[in-house]
Amino acid sequence: PDAMVDVDRARRCGFPEVIFGEGKSPETIAAIAQQLLDRGQSVLVTRVDALKATALATMLPSLQYNELGRTIRFDLPRSEPSSERRGRVAVITAGTSDLPVAEEARETLNWMGVDVKLVQDVGVAGPHRLPARLAEFAESDAVVVVAGMEGALPSVVGGYVACPVFAVPTSVGYGANFGGVSALLSMLNSCAANVAVVNIDAGFKAGYLAGLVATRAHRPSHGE
Amino acid sequence: PDAMVDVDRARRCGFPEVIFGEGKSPETIAAIAQQLLDRGQSVLVTRVDALKATALATMLPSLQYNELGRTIRFDLPRSEPSSERRGRVAVITAGTSDLPVAEEARETLNWMGVDVKLVQDVGVAGPHRLPARLAEFAESDAVVVVAGMEGALPSVVGGYVACPVFAVPTSVGYGANFGGVSALLSMLNSCAANVAVVNIDAGFKAGYLAGLVATRAHRPSHGE
Amino acid sequence: PDAMVDVDRARRCGFPEVIFGEGKSPETIAAIAQQLLDRGQSVLVTRVDALKATALATMLPSLQYNELGRTIRFDLPRSEPSSERRGRVAVITAGTSDLPVAEEARETLNWMGVDVKLVQDVGVAGPHRLPARLAEFAESDAVVVVAGMEGALPSVVGGYVACPVFAVPTSVGYGANFGGVSALLSMLNSCAANVAVVNIDAGFKAGYLAGLVATRAHRPSHGE
Amino acid sequence: PDAMVDVDRARRCGFPEVIFGEGKSPETIAAIAQQLLDRGQSVLVTRVDALKATALATMLPSLQYNELGRTIRFDLPRSEPSSERRGRVAVITAGTSDLPVAEEARETLNWMGVDVKLVQDVGVAGPHRLPARLAEFAESDAVVVVAGMEGALPSVVGGYVACPVFAVPTSVGYGANFGGVSALLSMLNSCAANVAVVNIDAGFKAGYLAGLVATRAHRPSHGE
Amino acid sequence: PDAMVDVDRARRCGFPEVIFGEGKSPETIAAIAQQLLDRGQSVLVTRVDALKATALATMLPSLQYNELGRTIRFDLPRSEPSSERRGRVAVITAGTSDLPVAEEARETLNWMGVDVKLVQDVGVAGPHRLPARLAEFAESDAVVVVAGMEGALPSVVGGYVACPVFAVPTSVGYGANFGGVSALLSMLNSCAANVAVVNIDAGFKAGYLAGLVATRAHRPSHGE
Amino acid sequence: PDAMVDVDRARRCGFPEVIFGEGKSPETIAAIAQQLLDRGQSVLVTRVDALKATALATMLPSLQYNELGRTIRFDLPRSEPSSERRGRVAVITAGTSDLPVAEEARETLNWMGVDVKLVQDVGVAGPHRLPARLAEFAESDAVVVVAGMEGALPSVVGGYVACPVFAVPTSVGYGANFGGVSALLSMLNSCAANVAVVNIDAGFKAGYLAGLVATRAHRPSHGE
Amino acid sequence: PDAMVDVDRARRCGFPEVIFGEGKSPETIAAIAQQLLDRGQSVLVTRVDALKATALATMLPSLQYNELGRTIRFDLPRSEPSSERRGRVAVITAGTSDLPVAEEARETLNWMGVDVKLVQDVGVAGPHRLPARLAEFAESDAVVVVAGMEGALPSVVGGYVACPVFAVPTSVGYGANFGGVSALLSMLNSCAANVAVVNIDAGFKAGYLAGLVATRAHRPSHGE
Amino acid sequence: PDAMVDVDRARRCGFPEVIFGEGKSPETIAAIAQQLLDRGQSVLVTRVDALKATALATMLPSLQYNELGRTIRFDLPRSEPSSERRGRVAVITAGTSDLPVAEEARETLNWMGVDVKLVQDVGVAGPHRLPARLAEFAESDAVVVVAGMEGALPSVVGGYVACPVFAVPTSVGYGANFGGVSALLSMLNSCAANVAVVNIDAGFKAGYLAGLVATRAHRPSHGE
Ligand SMILES: Nc1ncnc2c1ncn2[C@@H]1O[C@H](COP(=O)(O)O)[C@@H](O)[C@H]1O
Ligand SMILES: Nc1ncnc2c1ncn2[C@@H]1O[C@H](COP(=O)(O)O)[C@@H](O)[C@H]1O
Ligand SMILES: Nc1ncnc2c1ncn2[C@@H]1O[C@H](COP(=O)(O)O)[C@@H](O)[C@H]1O
Ligand SMILES: Nc1ncnc2c1ncn2[C@@H]1O[C@H](COP(=O)(O)O)[C@@H](O)[C@H]1O
Ligand SMILES: [Mg+2]
Ligand SMILES: [Mg+2]
Ligand SMILES: [Mg+2]
Ligand SMILES: [Mg+2]
Ligand SMILES: [Mg+2]
Ligand SMILES: [Mg+2]
Ligand SMILES: [Mg+2]
Ligand SMILES: [Mg+2]
Repeated sequence: PDAMVDVDRARRCGFPEVIFGEGKSPETIAAIAQQLLDRGQSVLVTRVDALKATALATMLPSLQYNELGRTIRFDLPRSEPSSERRGRVAVITAGTSDLPVAEEARETLNWMGVDVKLVQDVGVAGPHRLPARLAEFAESDAVVVVAGMEGALPSVVGGYVACPVFAVPTSVGYGANFGGVSALLSMLNSCAANVAVVNIDAGFKAGYLAGLVATRAHRPSHGE
Repeated sequence: PDAMVDVDRARRCGFPEVIFGEGKSPETIAAIAQQLLDRGQSVLVTRVDALKATALATMLPSLQYNELGRTIRFDLPRSEPSSERRGRVAVITAGTSDLPVAEEARETLNWMGVDVKLVQDVGVAGPHRLPARLAEFAESDAVVVVAGMEGALPSVVGGYVACPVFAVPTSVGYGANFGGVSALLSMLNSCAANVAVVNIDAGFKAGYLAGLVATRAHRPSHGE
Repeated sequence: PDAMVDVDRARRCGFPEVIFGEGKSPETIAAIAQQLLDRGQSVLVTRVDALKATALATMLPSLQYNELGRTIRFDLPRSEPSSERRGRVAVITAGTSDLPVAEEARETLNWMGVDVKLVQDVGVAGPHRLPARLAEFAESDAVVVVAGMEGALPSVVGGYVACPVFAVPTSVGYGANFGGVSALLSMLNSCAANVAVVNIDAGFKAGYLAGLVATRAHRPSHGE
Repeated sequence: PDAMVDVDRARRCGFPEVIFGEGKSPETIAAIAQQLLDRGQSVLVTRVDALKATALATMLPSLQYNELGRTIRFDLPRSEPSSERRGRVAVITAGTSDLPVAEEARETLNWMGVDVKLVQDVGVAGPHRLPARLAEFAESDAVVVVAGMEGALPSVVGGYVACPVFAVPTSVGYGANFGGVSALLSMLNSCAANVAVVNIDAGFKAGYLAGLVATRAHRPSHGE
Repeated sequence: PDAMVDVDRARRCGFPEVIFGEGKSPETIAAIAQQLLDRGQSVLVTRVDALKATALATMLPSLQYNELGRTIRFDLPRSEPSSERRGRVAVITAGTSDLPVAEEARETLNWMGVDVKLVQDVGVAGPHRLPARLAEFAESDAVVVVAGMEGALPSVVGGYVACPVFAVPTSVGYGANFGGVSALLSMLNSCAANVAVVNIDAGFKAGYLAGLVATRAHRPSHGE
Repeated sequence: PDAMVDVDRARRCGFPEVIFGEGKSPETIAAIAQQLLDRGQSVLVTRVDALKATALATMLPSLQYNELGRTIRFDLPRSEPSSERRGRVAVITAGTSDLPVAEEARETLNWMGVDVKLVQDVGVAGPHRLPARLAEFAESDAVVVVAGMEGALPSVVGGYVACPVFAVPTSVGYGANFGGVSALLSMLNSCAANVAVVNIDAGFKAGYLAGLVATRAHRPSHGE
Repeated sequence: PDAMVDVDRARRCGFPEVIFGEGKSPETIAAIAQQLLDRGQSVLVTRVDALKATALATMLPSLQYNELGRTIRFDLPRSEPSSERRGRVAVITAGTSDLPVAEEARETLNWMGVDVKLVQDVGVAGPHRLPARLAEFAESDAVVVVAGMEGALPSVVGGYVACPVFAVPTSVGYGANFGGVSALLSMLNSCAANVAVVNIDAGFKAGYLAGLVATRAHRPSHGE
Repeated sequence: PDAMVDVDRARRCGFPEVIFGEGKSPETIAAIAQQLLDRGQSVLVTRVDALKATALATMLPSLQYNELGRTIRFDLPRSEPSSERRGRVAVITAGTSDLPVAEEARETLNWMGVDVKLVQDVGVAGPHRLPARLAEFAESDAVVVVAGMEGALPSVVGGYVACPVFAVPTSVGYGANFGGVSALLSMLNSCAANVAVVNIDAGFKAGYLAGLVATRAHRPSHGE
């Protein structure tokens, strides 16, 4: 009757199971993390607040905590020889309040070994800001766009790039934003063809998907 | 027990009552229109399909029907000496499917005696299209922006202009657009400060509000 | 990777970018405010609770805090010579609980240099109260109406005035008011033609739009 | 396995069961009506379109059909001696499109033997219209108010009268009215204390409730 | 710019304005209450928690606080000579958790001078309980039914009585009850013709409406 | 690339796959039915309108069509020796309009070889009707309750019986019933512990579940 | 005016009334529990947090508290002779976070005297986990499946078993899960025929229904 | 005032603008298509019913119409030399009713020059069907999963593959599926990390995104 960690996932899906930290006790998280580490799998834990991270640090001292993104990583010393190139992803935010979700995406990409470029605060109300920075993400394999309120930014980004755009609606806003539903609907109804959507505040998922696209585009056995 | 037309509205509100044509019989519309015309007030009827317009034309031959916008106008010969300048409004659409709603706005502005500039099909998925046409509406007293799907255009327009933007969500789209709710929420949550919103498909209201702003900005007794 | 303030907005849109204070640390707010002040732009911060205001006061001593409206202003000494007339706006509330939102609107208008007349507690359940005070706002360039619960007041006000009405639904109420959705839908479905709507509790936006209409109606170069 | 008409209801509840005509075949309606008539109970059928009414007329020739209100009545010759006074109810509509629902209420009140005063088209956008007609319904035992769109009228009426107000939201409107939900929420959130609500388009129910209040206020055995 | 109490309401509507205590400071409540008391009007305040009531008691010592119902009353010494009969209302609850809302209704009826019979915990899952107590409320002028969860009780009560039923949905429940929406919809869709609905948790409104019906049914000048 | 019928389901789940007829052409239905018949499995098709049934009858002449329930059955001659007892289920409806959904449940139970007792039109507005018929379903192994509008009946039935109740909300009603959502929420929030719920209008599912309970309660190998 | 416990329920429905602990004071719960115990009925209380349980323990010392499931039981010494076999139910969870709801179901089944097998953490993202454990619940009389997020597990379980599946959506998740609505809708729309649904987080109800099916399948008087 | 086709999109985004055919007249579609063809861009039109396709065929004879998928293609003779490999995508459906949406995805992929493998009718209620066919899509660069009702299939597929999964909710279902919202929420809340979502019935978008991933993974200039 214990947690049944999906230790086989790295083989089937390319990356190990990630631990969703919300609603789990530090003890449970530590136990699952240890199971993965014992099998030589690197660990990512999401949705961990500062208090829980402190408790966890006493059990698993080598963890790296990102307070803004609320993530924990345990990297394996041997994984990812620096020579192996694993692609490039841009993470773009509409406003400064969207940063925590962007950080969750960024940490996920770091954990996957993908290069990340963060472009902040280029929302549509200042429409000249995005074109000014196009060059910074022109060569991306995939783009993550994080936006709250009206969630318009992914459509605009989608109109400028040739790679897939993974849009993350955030719960940032007030009034009729309904905890992110407004941005979610905007993104689902995007008139740009290259925009896919993940759940509200799901920085991890968008980062993971972008990371999959990027790493697979650079598989050594590919591109023949 | 008859319709109680608000014949006093022109005095109180500046323009006569407009007839909402949906769900009214041609006879009822004709009767109300006649009451207004008898008092020397020009008439605008909205939401009139082609069939009803044909029936009405037999009763009130001088009507002007706009099939796309589904509006009818009866202009008074004496009103609006051409010398009186009444302002300038731009009506901007995201896609070609938004045109019927834009036409309703345009006819309303015509009826109010306001100059209209129509800028079509400049939605955000082709983000270079709007900046290319900024000059055409730079001098507007107010702007009406009509958009369906993700409804992102008003926020972008709002970022370029210094006048009020009246945003009209349209029911254009499919799936999770919920008959225009997606665009409506986008517009209500716009991060641009100068964007006000009207009901879904409410081209008349946006046109009327923009027209009010424009005509009042050019009142002869003003600007001292 | 820092906040990318839209310092060019005053030129494009007529007024500087306003800082949305919710979810930003005092340090972030102070940094953005300083960037604007350094460029000679006056500053308005919204959604600042008393605690955050106290923290900010230690960094930027000259700020003016409105506790009810939760706004902060830094006026520039040189701006707005008193001789320049900038229009007149009425802010009308349905009940006493709507006052905080009305105060946000009023402070925004003050920051824009517009005259404000506040008319309180004239909701529709005491229908004789509004007509008794019509004279106080008859000459307004625009009206802001703030109402919760059933949100009926803007329609009634709209029936009495000839200028645009910017309706703000508030989250005041209980039960099936759904945090302001009830009032929001009422206002969107208003049978009065001159009623535009902003987001729930968006006193800033309504004030800003009304202020735009008022200031532009009194531009010196206008009214020829 | 047949319909189990509640023939005992007149004794328990004061009035016989009313037949909801929608989704029932003419044959079923005729059979139920006959069961009631056989027991000396007068019959009211609601939601009957013209086609079904025609079919029914061939089976039960004495029926009285109201096409606008979509109701059928079979009055009993002996019921309601004219000397028996049964109270007075006003039925008030916001716009001309609300008339069908008002007619359903009016026919229900007729069937109950209650005097009805119909006051039409006095919605809030022409706010001077209602006060002008207050005298016509000042003496009512109860008031039915029928309104679509923003559904503001019941609150205003509630502010003028001392009797219960039964508010009926109608599905009249478009866009974000959601088939009457906008008006329903307005009425549920009314700031007037004397406003009770029935289902969308439920003219029958509002009429029935108002009729109950009126008839019971005039029971001979009462008022001691 | 102060609160504009509707002191004329007792004349127009039969009872004075009632103060909604939520979101108002003790000072504001005391000021409004004093305005009413000064004009010889009895006072009812609703939605007052224990803390606010304690604060108010220091300002207005004669108040009567009902902690469960969260109401405050100030009765006038001279009002309601005991000889004047003002009708009878039953307040019925489905479960013990609905009691606070029932208490709000009961206090409102007390304030109106109406006799109240409270029948508790007779919800439909123990269907034999209600019929066993029918005699206790058979002679009521109106019935208030308070129920959460599936909100089925008003329909059943409506099937047993000949007077109007005012149904109050409560926010009692969990999961898909959506804060009372489940019960609200049930009540709006009641198949019983004599069921009117008020807002979620609106014990005051249901009590007030039932009180209006009861007091008016026993007006001395009536029942001729 | 053809339909992949789950022919193994009878072995895994006790009964063969049932064909959902909506949105499938007569040809597709006939092909799937033939695959099942070829393997000696009896066939049930649901959601088949009269037109499609006629078309199917030309391809598979031995079918039995129930027009009200919109179901088709092909019974196998050899299945179900009459000596094998398979339990007893009651199907109860609130109103006559709920009959089509009840018929779908009844046909499903017939197909499973379970005895069905139909009890119609015993909704809560005539609360004396259900107790009068309790004896007819006291011995049931499971009960299916079908109700629209406020969906209160399952809770009341649940209060009288000791077996599981499978509640089916129907889309019968109007206004705020939202196509059955009102009844669905009522049933999910039932205060009776023995009420499980299926989808709106899902007569098949409720019948199937009740049939599973009944047949398994009478398995020969059981009850030791 | 006291709580009217349904002490007759054990006779009518097979098991005594269960006490919903939320929103009830320890005193009220103790009083109701004592009424049941005095009549020789075993007691189950649900939704009791640790604080309330501690308070209750001082009044009713013999209680058994399950902190995770938030339930309290008082077993009667004489009930349930161990020889009486009462069936077997499996409780299956998708993730470790669903455990509290599963525990509520398990305690309910324990209280009913039914054998329970708990199978944890076999959600669909690791699709090989469920088939690996099929044997553990192959012989169940009924299955309870507890899942949050997308709520897909009941459909998959339903495809493997021949007994009824009672699906419990949990509020576990974030973003567009809407407190369990996402999982609820999934389960209602399950393409598996043997899946019935209960309210969000309603572990008690699913346990009770599964327990009813199991105990009744093993009644000594049955299976002839 | 004409349609402003985004002819530059092929350069910016890799593929030309696709024409959304719904709500456009055959004339408008033909005109836009011609503009693209004139610039040597291949054309894809979506959402074209049979009638409109027939009309279009008279104007642009070389079109290829897919009736099930409702798409039209005009391939350019010179594009796509067969030697250029462009990747491999699997399109998987839960049920046969999801085929039209799958066809839209498949045609889009054909138009992009990507190899497509269609795997039909492997929904979760027959859980053994999917594993049996894993080999057919093991080598995919991306997977499109199309499912209605509870929308569970993408999560299961996501648990088996290492590439991105683009999930398309369909409006297939009834009752509480709300036109695809049930499936949409399931997919957004998927516990599988590699699942991205597009709008309801948006076969085109999912196909386009999968096609982007596939073609870019096989760019000749890549994989160094
Ligand atoms: N922030 C996140 N958002 C969505 N899914 C996540 C997140 N973090 C982890 N997951 C997924 O959640 C699953 C673990 O769920 P659990 O068994 O409850 O720990 C893993 O398969 C991850 O793919
Ligand atoms: N298309 C429209 N959208 C919104 N309101 C309208 C429209 N056309 C007319 N109206 C308003 O509807 C009112 C007329 O309502 P009615 O009495 O039903 O004709 C007028 O006061 C107009 O302001
Ligand atoms: N109370 C407010 N409501 C809505 N928008 C606001 C408010 N205060 C500031 N803003 C807008 O929010 C933008 C700032 O967003 P941010 O980059 O997150 O600081 C500015 O452009 C303002 O127009
Ligand atoms: N238009 C209506 N709206 C709501 N309820 C109605 C209406 N017409 C009849 N009813 C009620 O519906 C019940 C009859 O339902 P049924 O058994 O389906 O005919 C009666 O008890 C009436 O009180
Ligand atoms: Mg910013
Ligand atoms: Mg276009
Ligand atoms: Mg007030
Ligand atoms: Mg009118
Ligand atoms: Mg109880
Ligand atoms: Mg009936
Ligand atoms: Mg897990
Ligand atoms: Mg199939």
